[in-house]
Amino acid sequence: MNSENFSICEKIVSSSYVRQGSQARRSHEQLIRLLLEQGKCPEEGWSESTVELFLNELAVMDSNNFLGNCGVGEREGRVASSLVARRHYRLIHGIGRSGDIAAVQPKAAGSSLLNKLTNSIVLDILKVAGVRSVSSCFVVPMATGMSLTLCFLTLRHRRPQAPYIIWPRIDQKSCFKAMITAGFEPVVIENVLEGDELRTDLEAVEKKIEELGAENILCVHSTTSCFAPRVPDRLEELAKMCAKHDIPHIVNNAYGIQSSKCMHLIQQGARVGRIDAFVQSLDKNFMVPVGGAIIAGFNESFIQEISRMYPGRASASPSLDVLITLLTLGAGGYKRLLKERKEMYAHLAQELQKLAEAHGERLLHTPHNPISLAMSLSSLQSQSVKAVTQLGSMLFTRQVSGARVVPLGNEQVVSGHTFKGFMSHSEAYPCPYLNAASAIGITQDDVTLCIKRLDKCLKSLRKEASPEPTAGTM
Amino acid sequence: MNSENFSICEKIVSSSYVRQGSQARRSHEQLIRLLLEQGKCPEEGWSESTVELFLNELAVMDSNNFLGNCGVGEREGRVASSLVARRHYRLIHGIGRSGDIAAVQPKAAGSSLLNKLTNSIVLDILKVAGVRSVSSCFVVPMATGMSLTLCFLTLRHRRPQAPYIIWPRIDQKSCFKAMITAGFEPVVIENVLEGDELRTDLEAVEKKIEELGAENILCVHSTTSCFAPRVPDRLEELAKMCAKHDIPHIVNNAYGIQSSKCMHLIQQGARVGRIDAFVQSLDKNFMVPVGGAIIAGFNESFIQEISRMYPGRASASPSLDVLITLLTLGAGGYKRLLKERKEMYAHLAQELQKLAEAHGERLLHTPHNPISLAMSLSSLQSQSVKAVTQLGSMLFTRQVSGARVVPLGNEQVVSGHTFKGFMSHSEAYPCPYLNAASAIGITQDDVTLCIKRLDKCLKSLRKEASPEPTAGTM
Amino acid sequence: MNSENFSICEKIVSSSYVRQGSQARRSHEQLIRLLLEQGKCPEEGWSESTVELFLNELAVMDSNNFLGNCGVGEREGRVASSLVARRHYRLIHGIGRSGDIAAVQPKAAGSSLLNKLTNSIVLDILKVAGVRSVSSCFVVPMATGMSLTLCFLTLRHRRPQAPYIIWPRIDQKSCFKAMITAGFEPVVIENVLEGDELRTDLEAVEKKIEELGAENILCVHSTTSCFAPRVPDRLEELAKMCAKHDIPHIVNNAYGIQSSKCMHLIQQGARVGRIDAFVQSLDKNFMVPVGGAIIAGFNESFIQEISRMYPGRASASPSLDVLITLLTLGAGGYKRLLKERKEMYAHLAQELQKLAEAHGERLLHTPHNPISLAMSLSSLQSQSVKAVTQLGSMLFTRQVSGARVVPLGNEQVVSGHTFKGFMSHSEAYPCPYLNAASAIGITQDDVTLCIKRLDKCLKSLRKEASPEPTAGTM
Amino acid sequence: MNSENFSICEKIVSSSYVRQGSQARRSHEQLIRLLLEQGKCPEEGWSESTVELFLNELAVMDSNNFLGNCGVGEREGRVASSLVARRHYRLIHGIGRSGDIAAVQPKAAGSSLLNKLTNSIVLDILKVAGVRSVSSCFVVPMATGMSLTLCFLTLRHRRPQAPYIIWPRIDQKSCFKAMITAGFEPVVIENVLEGDELRTDLEAVEKKIEELGAENILCVHSTTSCFAPRVPDRLEELAKMCAKHDIPHIVNNAYGIQSSKCMHLIQQGARVGRIDAFVQSLDKNFMVPVGGAIIAGFNESFIQEISRMYPGRASASPSLDVLITLLTLGAGGYKRLLKERKEMYAHLAQELQKLAEAHGERLLHTPHNPISLAMSLSSLQSQSVKAVTQLGSMLFTRQVSGARVVPLGNEQVVSGHTFKGFMSHSEAYPCPYLNAASAIGITQDDVTLCIKRLDKCLKSLRKEASPEPTAGTM
Repeated sequence: MNSENFSICEKIVSSSYVRQGSQARRSHEQLIRLLLEQGKCPEEGWSESTVELFLNELAVMDSNNFLGNCGVGEREGRVASSLVARRHYRLIHGIGRSGDIAAVQPKAAGSSLLNKLTNSIVLDILKVAGVRSVSSCFVVPMATGMSLTLCFLTLRHRRPQAPYIIWPRIDQKSCFKAMITAGFEPVVIENVLEGDELRTDLEAVEKKIEELGAENILCVHSTTSCFAPRVPDRLEELAKMCAKHDIPHIVNNAYGIQSSKCMHLIQQGARVGRIDAFVQSLDKNFMVPVGGAIIAGFNESFIQEISRMYPGRASASPSLDVLITLLTLGAGGYKRLLKERKEMYAHLAQELQKLAEAHGERLLHTPHNPISLAMSLSSLQSQSVKAVTQLGSMLFTRQVSGARVVPLGNEQVVSGHTFKGFMSHSEAYPCPYLNAASAIGITQDDVTLCIKRLDKCLKSLRKEASPEPTAGTM
Repeated sequence: MNSENFSICEKIVSSSYVRQGSQARRSHEQLIRLLLEQGKCPEEGWSESTVELFLNELAVMDSNNFLGNCGVGEREGRVASSLVARRHYRLIHGIGRSGDIAAVQPKAAGSSLLNKLTNSIVLDILKVAGVRSVSSCFVVPMATGMSLTLCFLTLRHRRPQAPYIIWPRIDQKSCFKAMITAGFEPVVIENVLEGDELRTDLEAVEKKIEELGAENILCVHSTTSCFAPRVPDRLEELAKMCAKHDIPHIVNNAYGIQSSKCMHLIQQGARVGRIDAFVQSLDKNFMVPVGGAIIAGFNESFIQEISRMYPGRASASPSLDVLITLLTLGAGGYKRLLKERKEMYAHLAQELQKLAEAHGERLLHTPHNPISLAMSLSSLQSQSVKAVTQLGSMLFTRQVSGARVVPLGNEQVVSGHTFKGFMSHSEAYPCPYLNAASAIGITQDDVTLCIKRLDKCLKSLRKEASPEPTAGTM
Repeated sequence: MNSENFSICEKIVSSSYVRQGSQARRSHEQLIRLLLEQGKCPEEGWSESTVELFLNELAVMDSNNFLGNCGVGEREGRVASSLVARRHYRLIHGIGRSGDIAAVQPKAAGSSLLNKLTNSIVLDILKVAGVRSVSSCFVVPMATGMSLTLCFLTLRHRRPQAPYIIWPRIDQKSCFKAMITAGFEPVVIENVLEGDELRTDLEAVEKKIEELGAENILCVHSTTSCFAPRVPDRLEELAKMCAKHDIPHIVNNAYGIQSSKCMHLIQQGARVGRIDAFVQSLDKNFMVPVGGAIIAGFNESFIQEISRMYPGRASASPSLDVLITLLTLGAGGYKRLLKERKEMYAHLAQELQKLAEAHGERLLHTPHNPISLAMSLSSLQSQSVKAVTQLGSMLFTRQVSGARVVPLGNEQVVSGHTFKGFMSHSEAYPCPYLNAASAIGITQDDVTLCIKRLDKCLKSLRKEASPEPTAGTM
Repeated sequence: MNSENFSICEKIVSSSYVRQGSQARRSHEQLIRLLLEQGKCPEEGWSESTVELFLNELAVMDSNNFLGNCGVGEREGRVASSLVARRHYRLIHGIGRSGDIAAVQPKAAGSSLLNKLTNSIVLDILKVAGVRSVSSCFVVPMATGMSLTLCFLTLRHRRPQAPYIIWPRIDQKSCFKAMITAGFEPVVIENVLEGDELRTDLEAVEKKIEELGAENILCVHSTTSCFAPRVPDRLEELAKMCAKHDIPHIVNNAYGIQSSKCMHLIQQGARVGRIDAFVQSLDKNFMVPVGGAIIAGFNESFIQEISRMYPGRASASPSLDVLITLLTLGAGGYKRLLKERKEMYAHLAQELQKLAEAHGERLLHTPHNPISLAMSLSSLQSQSVKAVTQLGSMLFTRQVSGARVVPLGNEQVVSGHTFKGFMSHSEAYPCPYLNAASAIGITQDDVTLCIKRLDKCLKSLRKEASPEPTAGTM
């Protein structure tokens, strides 16, 4: 309420109580003021009541909520269902304009603020998480793959004659398809085995660049976060190579914000070489629903070029989710989550190692991968060829989710390209294995239960328990 | 509750009351059964309680809501904020898989059902709205522009050598940018003036096809819904031409579902010629928040090809919104809204005509445009060149939204292409004008208030009232 | 947001859009200002967004929502469950203080405002509904019966020696128990039969007063709204009698606000005689959940005396419900509901009459009862004694709720008092009957379905259809 | 969804995923089954999704949510505002019937279940908290004071000739008014000073019983939880005395559930003597909004008698709040809160003691009071008479809530009875003091902030800082 209304309230209930109430309101306003002024994620999280107060204030500024509005356009933010209106806090107009997903909408000052502030807060968090020199970013309501596509499409306008993308192999369909969808030809660089780890084959990259000619290469498309035993690409070296050859460099940092190592790689790569944009998932890094990504970079005008490439308005839903989440957690809360994740990684590694030893397997040695772990299934496979895939379906029915079983010898065709040894990032990895990851939000209970159930499954398989129907892998 | 629990309830409260309660539950289940069996929008809308019951049931089937789940993957549907969880009904996993936006997710049977059912219901509604022979469609969490881009990118794989898109001019940035973003060269076909209407120049299209060679043309990109005095493209003729030359044909039907005329054009076009896909906005046709579109077509395998082109998972939020909305409205409720819109169009036309006459202007004669109307501003312009743009900002500050003022002589560069007479779909339209549309959800009050305020503004401008600061057009 | 924050917003998005947003906010504030100033129900209902904005503003003023509060008391408005906090809009402190349910709480300026405003708005609506001279009222979170008890307990302090309450019979348990619970002896005055109607036996009342001595009578306890064929008491005459003998007069107006006739009786009674308080249900008159009542009267100090009699704080939930409802409906919306109810009464009467005739029964002639109707079941009873009660359970299982079947010859002991002919307000009503009422919120569909199902039941009973298990009456 | 619907789902998405979803549903059902069967608070708290699933299931069983219902009664559970419907989970019918607040409603099987289950769970928690032999209880939507009134009114029917209630003094208005409202004469027994503690004067009670005659005494009305330096009444001795003289005994256990000591006193009192009922607040013990109480006892038929005394239906809102809260916390969570409260009591005592010493005051020695503490303000008062009350208002404006300042020499008339030394439970306590309590939900931060601010206030008062306007005490 404004000061006039507070004055009237003083006639209804005791003025000293109203004054205290009005003062209390000011303390919420003060938090909002700081946010607007600084555009940073507050160190301490907001209460739900401040968050909702703020969202309601934003909604009030959108024309669909004007009490005296009359609409004779083709898009007036009308909502047929009150369930729908409510779940979007009556913020209906989405973000952006036909020209630019980051542009301000005349009909929706509130939604426009939401968009600008979210991008600003997210930029702050990218810095907090380790990429201190990032200069610009925006949230886009598409998952990582489609966001990579958008980056590639933007680059096409800069390098219209370049059909190839250099891509150190990572066996995840959507990032491969991101290139195909954009209309480019991925040039797959097989990884090299160093100890248990699969790492970037820098020589092969260099050789391929020379072979194809730098001018024919749209960009190098590297990856940080990935399933062990693959580890993050050697970003520094790739970035230097890109700088040297004047080739753009796009980094798929899908769930890398949660890891200081991945973020450090990007920071370093940009410092010593060239990174044009790095793309990350909202859901995997901020515990929000699937469907948004952040496109970030070190050159504001290039990031703007990408944002202008998105034709038309877009859903504000992912922005709203990440805004609510970051305001509620605060930077402090987010850092706490990162710290817990790291600790749980160590714990998971320890427990997996113990379990591996007990079953005649071993935890693969992949120190460069800060999130994902892999335990060999060699001994299991030696018992029975089917046992490995059987383990996958047993874990599925026992509600262990995310524990990925990788058998040997898979072959898969993705968009016309044949991948031997698919899922293992390598044509012939030495052994089958099982992945488990310590991702943000994981709890002690997750680890304990997973290890317990895994143990049971392995024991039961050893006894050649009655076979279960296969249900597919995740 | 299951039957076992109902039995226990009978020991707590009178069994005849419990039996009635259990019977009442069955009537909700019955509605859900019909939906699942038929995959059609129920004729009569559901109560909010049935809708929420259903969504809760779906959520229970997703692994992030399993009571005994333990997650060791990198994407487990964890949610940090309970505000966020709640507003998505705890459906967190989004839709699709890396391979295909329409694919089923092992971790999320509920979200997968939501996705399949939404697509099925939307298909039903497209038929109800007039495109009876549509065979396949899917909801995509991107607005119309980006969805068109996805269609063009898909076509590239079929016609890798074709750089051109034939495009009868419509002055709306995002559909132009959709082609640019996809990496194609739009070939703009200027419209012809027939009476007051701007219509497709069929001869020019034909000539251009011959000039460029059909094999070099990716597709024809036509438009139905648009601002008067432009009218929907001559779809039948274009579709025939496409069939003749074996050129794909993509239709931008942005807000055309709400008009039986637009839908009839598509139905006819597909019947007599060739339409590969038609794309429409969710928000503009179904009164949901901005950010979703429907890609539909007559050949299931081509539509699937497009859905497989989307790399990675996607936000379920637009699907959820349209599902809630259609279940709540029912097919009957939606048809009622369409009928009311049509009636309000006639009413708006009548009122605008009266107003025009009172101010020495005229309602442009655009019978082929079923949604948008235009009133000349010739007389206003003759008073003062500035008066026309001034009218725009006056309407803005008076909370008349969507009433677009179109002055003469605008020139704008969009992605490198210069449009003379921008906003008017024509290099030199005879007069400046004002647009008003009767879009779905418009009310009698909207019309009354708009006419009243417009009248005041025109009067005040005539008196050469004190100038207002310009605030920009919408 | 306050003006300072709006200024900062102008640096983030265009200032003209922000200014419009800030203006839009003022229009909500303006509605709130009117409410605070006038304390009346707004004529036009508020949008949900204004209602929620207002409730959030109130909540912010309560100490449990102060951002810097520290609590070391025994009652700090802490909430363990966020579901609970949310459903009460974080208004946790309830209403009133130990001394007075209407008192202001230092810890909860917002809840105190809510309480005062609700009482003020409800007073306004009582006037709108017909009791123009009512001077004071308050909402109490107890249903009608317990609220009557509170009135009687208050009167005891004024008339400590008076053990009797004169009570024209109405067969509804809670109002009888209200007297018993308060510790008084109800003196039941049987009704007289006039035509089909059961009306107050004024002579018997007068005689009883003389017999017991006015000084021994705590009060007369009369009733307006009731089931036909009983009709509202003769309030004018009773009020005059009370004035003459200096006996307090409490009116049970349970669901009478919805009927202009009942309200008129109270207004007239107070004008020509004496009415000390009238009590009405919130749920039955305002379509809110069960559990609240309004205690109102014409003498402010007596009503205050009652409110001071309630020991301790009380739930704000019923006040919140009626506040939300009345702000959403507006006085205009409420009057519209009253009008529709009246029309539906005429419709129901007509349909019941037709049905009665078709089945050899008749609609009892009870013109003084404005809400409830009764249809004889004489012909049904003549077929079979059991058929009448069977009809009751048939209607129950067919989901016709509220259609009460009243057989002859019921006898029931309530708190030690034996009522012959219980349910029929009379020791020997001439015929069994069925009640149906046109209460606020009833729809055309309710009437149509009820008549249809009733018709089927009567037909099936006539055919001596296979007997159904009895499930009890409502 | 029922099994039929799950089967249909298997045709839409992979059957193994659906089967897993259906299995997940069963695990929720299983929790509900246990609850229904055992009627006990689950040891481990439920997730919000199970809680809401359960509430939705209950709502579906109420007639107002029947899809085919038609209503022609005067109370059909119609709701005008969807905001209101939603916040009550569409449970509209309240609890109880005219005859009995614990009775089952034919129209509302779901609400009836809610009522029964809540009472059952609350009974379980009373046992868990220490009164192991409690046999019956019910939740009533009235705060403690009015609930005590109801107990006294019920006793009147058993002892119609007894006008007196023996009441060891406790300076809290609502419990005094509870007796006045019920129409009885409180006989105040002053407390005796033992060390710093104010304790029950057992001799004076005994003497008064003999003086008035046991048959003239309605009951003894004792108190457990109270502000220090008063301590809980000597329940064992009072209970024995009541047994000896055959006098009913009602215990005001307002916020005593949270203290094992208070609960132990009741358990012991009932074991060795007589306790007819004990009454406690919902909000103060379970962190729910104000407005509900629990009436409990050791004799089922007497507790039933009280529940039958409540005339009419009642609000289900307090029952719903406590049900949600206890299901969410689980018995384990509740016990954890009790443990934390106890620890925080020790911490608060320690901190207050340090502070007291630093300011020349002392922490009063009140070991029998397990919740509330008192710190002398003698030294402060010696500086200035006004300083003590000034401290109160200073704390209020600094948002320290619940810290009660008790000056000497207050005199107050409550319902005609003059209390000397009001607020201090004694006509002449030796020194003024300040109260602070460690109540359920208190946090380390509450204590830290309170001590810090208190310290500042005391320092500033010592410096005879500029006087502040008094704002009243809490």
